[in-house]
Amino acid sequence: MMHTDTICAIATAQGGAIGVIRVSGPIAIEATSRIFTPMSGKPLEERPNYSLTYGKIFSDGGEILDEVLVSVFRAPHSYTGENSVEISCHGSSYILQQVMALLIAGGCRLANPGEYTQRAFLNGKMDLSQAEAVADLISSATSSTHRLAMNQMRGGFSRELSALRDKLLHLTSLMELELDFSDHEELEFADRTELSQIADDIERVIARLANSFSVGNALKNGVPVAIIGETNAGKSTLLNALLNEEKAIVSDVHGTTRDVIEDTINLRGTTFRFIDTAGIRQTTDVVESIGIERTYQKISQADIVLWMIDAGNSTLSTQHSALKTEILPHLEDKNLILLFNKADMLTSERRTALEQAFADVDAPNLFISAKHRAGMDELETLLTETAALPEISQNDVIVTNLRHYEALVHALDSIHRVQSGLQMNLSGDFVSQDLRECIHYLSDIVGEVSTDSVLQNIFKHFCIGK
Amino acid sequence: MMHTDTICAIATAQGGAIGVIRVSGPIAIEATSRIFTPMSGKPLEERPNYSLTYGKIFSDGGEILDEVLVSVFRAPHSYTGENSVEISCHGSSYILQQVMALLIAGGCRLANPGEYTQRAFLNGKMDLSQAEAVADLISSATSSTHRLAMNQMRGGFSRELSALRDKLLHLTSLMELELDFSDHEELEFADRTELSQIADDIERVIARLANSFSVGNALKNGVPVAIIGETNAGKSTLLNALLNEEKAIVSDVHGTTRDVIEDTINLRGTTFRFIDTAGIRQTTDVVESIGIERTYQKISQADIVLWMIDAGNSTLSTQHSALKTEILPHLEDKNLILLFNKADMLTSERRTALEQAFADVDAPNLFISAKHRAGMDELETLLTETAALPEISQNDVIVTNLRHYEALVHALDSIHRVQSGLQMNLSGDFVSQDLRECIHYLSDIVGEVSTDSVLQNIFKHFCIGK
Repeated sequence: MMHTDTICAIATAQGGAIGVIRVSGPIAIEATSRIFTPMSGKPLEERPNYSLTYGKIFSDGGEILDEVLVSVFRAPHSYTGENSVEISCHGSSYILQQVMALLIAGGCRLANPGEYTQRAFLNGKMDLSQAEAVADLISSATSSTHRLAMNQMRGGFSRELSALRDKLLHLTSLMELELDFSDHEELEFADRTELSQIADDIERVIARLANSFSVGNALKNGVPVAIIGETNAGKSTLLNALLNEEKAIVSDVHGTTRDVIEDTINLRGTTFRFIDTAGIRQTTDVVESIGIERTYQKISQADIVLWMIDAGNSTLSTQHSALKTEILPHLEDKNLILLFNKADMLTSERRTALEQAFADVDAPNLFISAKHRAGMDELETLLTETAALPEISQNDVIVTNLRHYEALVHALDSIHRVQSGLQMNLSGDFVSQDLRECIHYLSDIVGEVSTDSVLQNIFKHFCIGK
Repeated sequence: MMHTDTICAIATAQGGAIGVIRVSGPIAIEATSRIFTPMSGKPLEERPNYSLTYGKIFSDGGEILDEVLVSVFRAPHSYTGENSVEISCHGSSYILQQVMALLIAGGCRLANPGEYTQRAFLNGKMDLSQAEAVADLISSATSSTHRLAMNQMRGGFSRELSALRDKLLHLTSLMELELDFSDHEELEFADRTELSQIADDIERVIARLANSFSVGNALKNGVPVAIIGETNAGKSTLLNALLNEEKAIVSDVHGTTRDVIEDTINLRGTTFRFIDTAGIRQTTDVVESIGIERTYQKISQADIVLWMIDAGNSTLSTQHSALKTEILPHLEDKNLILLFNKADMLTSERRTALEQAFADVDAPNLFISAKHRAGMDELETLLTETAALPEISQNDVIVTNLRHYEALVHALDSIHRVQSGLQMNLSGDFVSQDLRECIHYLSDIVGEVSTDSVLQNIFKHFCIGK
């Protein structure tokens, strides 16, 4: 599937020593050659594949715009699978814009976000889940997210899905054999127990993949943490202390997969995402004062809940009863940590009193001073241990993409119906129907059955030039 | 002059689709080859010059860090004149940092700012004024600054200086001939009138170059404009109106030649630099209230002075007399523009009264409303016409660099002494001394006599990776 138009884009961020323009499509080499004069030797069209040529870009007026290096790649041996050129210019936005204008005047058009990778997918250079991993790879900020993206880009997930679909197709063919020859009593078929075992195998793999998303999502987007407490308990001071402590805000995610940037902090290799902290910074947020609803909402999104208590505050019993009666019932599968803040001036009597007051709450507690950054080390240790994310190797297949997760949940649903259909001895027609549905959802992940609108939605989150 | 250490740096800004790492020095190819496995074919060391190789970078632990394209250049056919490699990675800062760490572990070291260009200079690939133009080229934001930098980088200025030095050397040799054979009365020498004519020629060229700096500086750093007026005359509103009108703040100058970024606005291709506007934004700035000294200082730095008057204000006579007695005497070679602000609600009587009140001030005036952005078009026209910067062609030699300007001023000084020495019939010894000094200053510009500290000072303003 070759495209008829040639696209161009600046593939590097603004402000570096070097700026790279990518051109891809049928006239990529010719359009570049028209504005480019090699310092010596043959024109660009006659240069070998994977060669670099030094020369000058001339403006319409015949002025030298820049001295550049041009790489030539010919279909199908390029990233997109099309004829491609990369122009390495001096990193001046003026020069880059002018070169882009010349290319566009020469018949190229500005590429859409992710259009290079989209073309690579459409030309069969990679499947859809691999294409999606390219954006993840670019935005990866830790060794774990890097490993997951790299494995996915290199087809680890695709191979797992392919093996699954082979099993599903095998099961389907067995079911259909049963259907076709069900009148011939002399023929033997795999009995339903055998079929059920195959279905169970498949279910286990799909369930494992779907379940891996909670870890995958925490690794990719950060372990969600809610900070709850009275207005002056020091929530925003704590956040600032954590931010300043590490100076490692993961906020350099440009136009890749995340549009909204939350307060995301990298602590000892684990990424934490603080929920709804924009609110913390501006408004008051006491359980009692602005209503329990918002607090519940924050808790429901969190894996870890930090309950902050002003250690000097006299309303301990109110806090304790709010925690016991209003919050604890909502913390079933959450991790609660009690933080006694402003603990730098505390007498040991007061410490003991605080610990005793909350002794019946089954949660680790910590005395800290967010303002004086005391206890931050212990808090980081506690957070990292509580998150307890596994060490990732480059061979682990872990789902990090919401679209994949949703497809897997649907596939799991279908295979569950297959399982119960087999157990209830339903007719092969019905079971086959569910099997085909299951295969459909898995095919959706690698892009075999994706519609244009799905593709558009995926690639619009890429950056320009990728 | 080959360096013994191999340097590496990320040459692209953070956040793009592609990130490029440059490696240069004796072990550039070997150090890269050690962490890089081609997808197929020969190792990097056996690849031809100016070739691209696709392959994988492996971490110490044997994990795939990235799939990359590697370019190979061998001495002397590279930017630095040394063996060089460019690694084109996915634009993830995590990946780029990891690759850098591997290179550094493999015996490379992190490059200093501008060290690639410095090596290109030291290896004779370009002279010092050409090297300096590389930074100017990268930071160029208009067609004029781009043309000037391109001409300088391509050696236009160097050729002019070289011609000058030839003339100076010719003059020196004539002087020394006179000295050596002054006892031999039978020999004829060029008479002093002829020598003076040659010196006059040289003086004219140096003076033209030195004088071009005022235009060059205005083109490169912006035409300096001072906005003067009472606290509530609307100075910051005007600045915001101009900024918003064009949305073309020239502030994307990263670590190149300018450290302090002022309010610089690009209006119709001309760059204007508003002096000391940080002050405008925060403090009051009335001539009377905060003292005349600061106002004089601002005016002295400006080419254009905008005198803003609140058209609704009743203290017209005070303003008029302040302008006449305190300001006008300081505006000898400055361009004054009167701005009657808040003119949107003005009666025609009031307009006439204002014009009459300032009729004896020889300056164009304009009725505007900064708040409602009325009259901004006319103001832009007036500013651009007043600046009257020449249209620059790529062949114009115009000095834009303060270091060059200072060297030219010194050279001009020396050649003036040569001229008067010849006129006063001073001994050839003295005149030759001044001639050699003049040559020295011109040689300094192209870096033939520059010291290490001069070089350090020049290249520290470059960006890393250039």
